[in-house]
Amino acid sequence: MFPKYDVIVVGAGHAGCEAAHAAATMGSKVLLITMNLQTIAQMSCNPAMGGVAKGQIVREIDALGGMSGIISDETMIQFRMLNRSKGPAMWSPRCQSDRQKFAELWRYKLEQNPNVDFWQEMVTGLITEDGAAVGVRTSLGLEIKASSIILTNGTFLNGLIHIGEKQFGGGRAGESSSIGITADLVKLGFQSGRMKTGTPPRVDQRSINFQKMEEQLGDEHPERFSYTDTNITTDQKSCWITFTNLAVHEELKKGFDKSPMFNGRIQGLGPRYCPSVEDKINRFADKDSHQIFLEPEGRDTVEMYVNGFSTSLPEDIQYKALQKIPGFENVKMFRPGYAIEYDFFPPTQLYSTLETQLVNNLYFAGQINGTTGYEEAGSQGLMAGINAHQKVHNKEPFVLKRNEAYIGVLIDDLTNKGTDEPYRMFTSRAEFRTLLRQDNADIRLTKKSNDIGLASNSRLEKVTLKIKSSQNLITELGKIKVEPNDVNAYLSENKSSQLREKTTLHNLLKRPELNLGNLREISPELETILLTLTPETSQQAEINIKYERYIEKEVTMAEKMNKLENLSINPDFDYSKLTSLSYEARHKLKEIKPETLGQASRISGVSPADISVLMIFLGR
Amino acid sequence: MFPKYDVIVVGAGHAGCEAAHAAATMGSKVLLITMNLQTIAQMSCNPAMGGVAKGQIVREIDALGGMSGIISDETMIQFRMLNRSKGPAMWSPRCQSDRQKFAELWRYKLEQNPNVDFWQEMVTGLITEDGAAVGVRTSLGLEIKASSIILTNGTFLNGLIHIGEKQFGGGRAGESSSIGITADLVKLGFQSGRMKTGTPPRVDQRSINFQKMEEQLGDEHPERFSYTDTNITTDQKSCWITFTNLAVHEELKKGFDKSPMFNGRIQGLGPRYCPSVEDKINRFADKDSHQIFLEPEGRDTVEMYVNGFSTSLPEDIQYKALQKIPGFENVKMFRPGYAIEYDFFPPTQLYSTLETQLVNNLYFAGQINGTTGYEEAGSQGLMAGINAHQKVHNKEPFVLKRNEAYIGVLIDDLTNKGTDEPYRMFTSRAEFRTLLRQDNADIRLTKKSNDIGLASNSRLEKVTLKIKSSQNLITELGKIKVEPNDVNAYLSENKSSQLREKTTLHNLLKRPELNLGNLREISPELETILLTLTPETSQQAEINIKYERYIEKEVTMAEKMNKLENLSINPDFDYSKLTSLSYEARHKLKEIKPETLGQASRISGVSPADISVLMIFLGR
Repeated sequence: MFPKYDVIVVGAGHAGCEAAHAAATMGSKVLLITMNLQTIAQMSCNPAMGGVAKGQIVREIDALGGMSGIISDETMIQFRMLNRSKGPAMWSPRCQSDRQKFAELWRYKLEQNPNVDFWQEMVTGLITEDGAAVGVRTSLGLEIKASSIILTNGTFLNGLIHIGEKQFGGGRAGESSSIGITADLVKLGFQSGRMKTGTPPRVDQRSINFQKMEEQLGDEHPERFSYTDTNITTDQKSCWITFTNLAVHEELKKGFDKSPMFNGRIQGLGPRYCPSVEDKINRFADKDSHQIFLEPEGRDTVEMYVNGFSTSLPEDIQYKALQKIPGFENVKMFRPGYAIEYDFFPPTQLYSTLETQLVNNLYFAGQINGTTGYEEAGSQGLMAGINAHQKVHNKEPFVLKRNEAYIGVLIDDLTNKGTDEPYRMFTSRAEFRTLLRQDNADIRLTKKSNDIGLASNSRLEKVTLKIKSSQNLITELGKIKVEPNDVNAYLSENKSSQLREKTTLHNLLKRPELNLGNLREISPELETILLTLTPETSQQAEINIKYERYIEKEVTMAEKMNKLENLSINPDFDYSKLTSLSYEARHKLKEIKPETLGQASRISGVSPADISVLMIFLGR
Repeated sequence: MFPKYDVIVVGAGHAGCEAAHAAATMGSKVLLITMNLQTIAQMSCNPAMGGVAKGQIVREIDALGGMSGIISDETMIQFRMLNRSKGPAMWSPRCQSDRQKFAELWRYKLEQNPNVDFWQEMVTGLITEDGAAVGVRTSLGLEIKASSIILTNGTFLNGLIHIGEKQFGGGRAGESSSIGITADLVKLGFQSGRMKTGTPPRVDQRSINFQKMEEQLGDEHPERFSYTDTNITTDQKSCWITFTNLAVHEELKKGFDKSPMFNGRIQGLGPRYCPSVEDKINRFADKDSHQIFLEPEGRDTVEMYVNGFSTSLPEDIQYKALQKIPGFENVKMFRPGYAIEYDFFPPTQLYSTLETQLVNNLYFAGQINGTTGYEEAGSQGLMAGINAHQKVHNKEPFVLKRNEAYIGVLIDDLTNKGTDEPYRMFTSRAEFRTLLRQDNADIRLTKKSNDIGLASNSRLEKVTLKIKSSQNLITELGKIKVEPNDVNAYLSENKSSQLREKTTLHNLLKRPELNLGNLREISPELETILLTLTPETSQQAEINIKYERYIEKEVTMAEKMNKLENLSINPDFDYSKLTSLSYEARHKLKEIKPETLGQASRISGVSPADISVLMIFLGR
C-alpha cells in the first residue's frame, strides 16, 4: 500500500512538521503520519512564538531553512522585540499568532512539498530488524516501511488529562491519546518517564472588562522572524495585562486539597519555569500578586488565552478565582485549564544527532525528549529531519556546537545531561550568548545549512551580501574621521565627552551613549553610505563594533572550550579545593571522577559555570 | 459557574450550529457545548452543500433566517445549478465548499452572536425534573441548567468506526465518541436504535492523473444559495469524473469476507441512497461500472474526496481497488474510508416541533433522529432552535406544512412515519414539489419567520419587493400585446407557431419553446421593464406564468389535503377493493384501521401516493 519511505515522521506538531519539511526539502521521500490531519501544527498551548531565548531559536530554525519563522511571520497578529533596552544578546523577538491560521499555513506549506506524503492514523508500534528501526505499525495493523523513523509524539504517549479530581485519557483536550509506542520502546530497552505540563483556561473576550487592564501594544515598527522577505504584520492586536491578588489566591487555595498537583495524583514533573498558578502561590507564598497576560487567540475570534493562569484545579475553582481578577468579574470560560501527564524518554539515550543509541535509524524530537515549548520542539524536529536525511543518504551527521547555536546548547544539554523536568531554553543556559544573537543566526548557520542542501541559495546569497556589506561598513567607519570642531557641539548636546583630536567614527561608535543614528547626524558621508544599506546590515556592523570586546572574549572562550573538550583530568584531582565550584558539582565530580573535561561537562548538576572554573584551573 | 440558559445546544455540527444561531438570534440565551471547539461545523463527509432537494432545503434554511446558505456562499469553490434542463421544480443549487473555511466561518458567525456562549466538554447525561429536561451533566460532573435542551449529537453517540475487521470507538476518525447520553435517555423510556453511515477515502491530488478523467466545471454564471447579497464565487475549482470497472469490482470483492457490512459486524442500517461502493457492487451485480466524482476539499489543499467510493472494506483493499480506477493508477491515500455506527432515536418519539413526547423541553435534531445529510441536519437544528425559543418564551410552536417547505415534509415524515434507515430528502418525497421550488423559498417562508422574530426586516423587505415586482411584471405581460406581422418572422425562426391575431406576451410565454429572453427580443417595451428588475424577479414571474396550471393544481391539492387531514374514515372501510393502493398500504391500513385520513397518512408504508388515492376516493 505504501512505498518504502526514506523517512517516516510520526506526529505533526511543531517537531514533526519541521522534521518532515527539512528531510523532504533535502530530497528524502517522507511520510508524515498524524492521528488527525485536521489538527496539523496546532498550537496546543499559548498562541505565540518566540520570546527570550526562544525567539533566537526561531531565528536559528529560519536561518537553517526551517519553516517556523516564515509561518510565524505570515500568521502573526502582534510583534514585540523583547529586552530591547538591554544588550543585543538579550534582544528576543516574540509574536502573538493567529492559532488557526498558523496551523493552516503549516499544512499548506507541507502540502506544497512534493516529497511529503500524508497518512492519518495512530501509530501503535515500531518495527525493528537487527537493532534498527525499519518501519511503524498502525492501529489498523498496517506496516509501513522506511529507512528511518522520527518520533514526535508530543504529549500524546499515554496522555492523561487532569482537572481537579477527574482524569481522562487524551493527548489534548478533545483528542485521543496514543497507545502502544511506549510499551514497544520499553521492550526494546528504553527507559521512559512521566512528565507533566499544563494549560490555562480559555475565556470569552466579550465577557472581559478591558478598562481594568493595561493594554500591551505591539511594537510600533514590527519586525519579522525570518531572514527572507516575509510580510510584516500590520493592524496588530493588543494583549492585556492584569494581576492576581490575595482574593484570587484564597479562591484557588480552596481547591488545593483536590489538586492533582498537590495530592500526589500527578507523578510527572512539570515545567519549573512555566508553573501552574497554584504552584506559584504555593512556592512564592510571600507574593501577593502574579501577572496575567490575556492574549487573543486570533484576529477573528473572541477566544482568549489567560497566560500565567495554567491550572489543573477543579473547574469551578478556576472559575471562582478568575472572577476575582480585575477585568474578569463577569468572565465566561470557553474551556477549563488542565494538566496533562505523558511519557517521555530521557534524552541521554540519544546521540547528538537525535538518533537513539539503542535503535539505529530511530530519532526522537520534541516533548518526547522531555522538552517544553514550540521552539524547542521545532528545532529538534528540524535537526532530526536533517540527520535522518543525512544518514539515509550516507552523509555526515549535522551537529551544532554550543557556541554556534541555541539549538546546539539545547541538544547538547539534552543528550549529555538529560532533564528531570520539562526543559525550556533560557539565555542563561548558553555560555556564549553574545555570539548567539537573534540578529546573526543567518550569519552563524545559513552557510552550514546550504552546504548540506537545506537552506536555499537565495538565502545564502542574502546572508553573504549582509556579511560583506556590514564588513564594508565597519571598514568605512574606521576610515571616516571627524574633527573636534565639527562635532563637539553635537557631542555635548548628547552628553558625550568632547574630542581633543580628530578620530574615526568607529571609535565614536564604541561610546555607549552614541549609536549609528547619532553618527549619521554628524557625518554626511556616513549618511550617504547608510542610505544604500539595509537596517539589518548596519545593525550588524553596529553590534560588532559596540560589543567587539565581548564577542572576541566569547570567541576565544569558545575556541578554548572546543579545544579543551578533550583535555584529560587527573583522576586524583581534588575538587574540594576548588571552592568556586558549586557544592553539587564538587560532590558529583568527586564521585564520578570524569576522565576529560568533556565528560565532566556532561554530568548532570555540573553547570557551564562550573566547567569554566575547571577550565581556567586546568588551563593554567 | 454558569447562569441558567434559555437553551443548551449539545453538539456543534450543522444541526447544533443552526439551532444555536436561531434561538440566540431570536433572543434566547444559548450555551453551545461541543467536545472540541476547534472542530465546530466540520463537514464530516463530502465537502459540498446542496444538491437535488437538498439545495432547496438550504434555500429554505436561508429564507427562514438560518446561516447555512450564507456560509455556503462565502466559502464555496464551485457552484452548479443541477437539473436546469428540467422543470423549475427540479432545479437544485449545489456547491463544492472549502471544508476548512466553511467551519471557520460558522464559528466566526456564532462568536459574533452576543447571545451564544461556548463550552468545550463532553455532555454525558441529562438532568430532568418532573418529566422535563432542566439541564445537562458533563464529563467533569458539572450540572448546567437551562429551560430547554437540544441534542444534536450526530454520529458521536456510542460511535463505533469500522474498517475491515477493525473497530474503534470514535465519533469521527481521530475524535472520541460520546458516552452516557444514550443510557440516560433509555432509562427515561426512549427507544434507541443503531444506524450506520460511511465515508470514502481521501486522496492526494498530486498523485492523480486528471487527463484520464472528465473535468466538471462550475456553472459559467454561478449563483448563490442565500437570498441576501452574499458574494458570488469566482475562480471556481473543478471536480473530476471517472468510473469504476470490473477490475475495480474484483479487487473490492476480495475484501467482502472481511467487510463489516456483509459479515454481520455492522448492525445498523445504512443510507440506501448513499450506499457504500461494496453495497453498490453487491446490489447492482449487473452493473459493470459506477461513477466516481473526485472533489477538491478546498481551494488551497491537495486533499480530495472520492465521492461514490464510500467503503468500510480493509484499507489495503481500498487502496488496490482505487489503483484500478482510471486516473488513480498512482494514487496516494490520505486516510481510508470507513463506516461508523451510532445511536439514533426513532423520530416518531417527537412532536412536529422536534420536542420529545416523553420529556418536555428536550429537542432532538439531526442524525440523532435518523437522518443523513448536512442540509437535513441543519434544517432540523433550525426548527428545534426556533421551537425551543418559542416554548421558553411561551409563544406558539412553529411548524411548517408539507405544502410549505421541504423542511415540513422532512419533519412530517420523520415524526409521523419514522425511518429505519438514514433518511435523506428527495424531491419525490414531496407531493407539492412544484410549489416547493428553490426560487421561491423566500416567498414561502421569510414572512413566517419574520413574524416570529428570526428573519430580519431587511430580508422581509427584499422578498416583499420581489413579490410585488414579479406580480407587476405578470400584469404587464398580460397588457403588452404584439401584432402577428411584427413577430411571426421571429417566431418561425424560433420554431414557434405563427400568430393569427394579436396576443399578449403572457400568452406567448406559456409556449414551452419561448422564454422571457425571447420575449424581450420581440418587445422593446418589455426590454425596458426588465432592465429595472432583478433576474430573480423576472424568473419568478416567468415560472409562475409557464407553470401556472401545475402550480394551481398543487395549490388546490394542498388545500384539499389540509382540509381532508381531519376527514374521518369509516373503520369498516374495505381497503382491499382499492387496488390502486400499494400492497403494503392496503395491508397496514387494514391492520391499523386509522380513524382519520391524517392518521392514515402517518402510517409507515403508506405513501403520499396512497393517500392521494384514498383522498380521491373519500373525497367523492
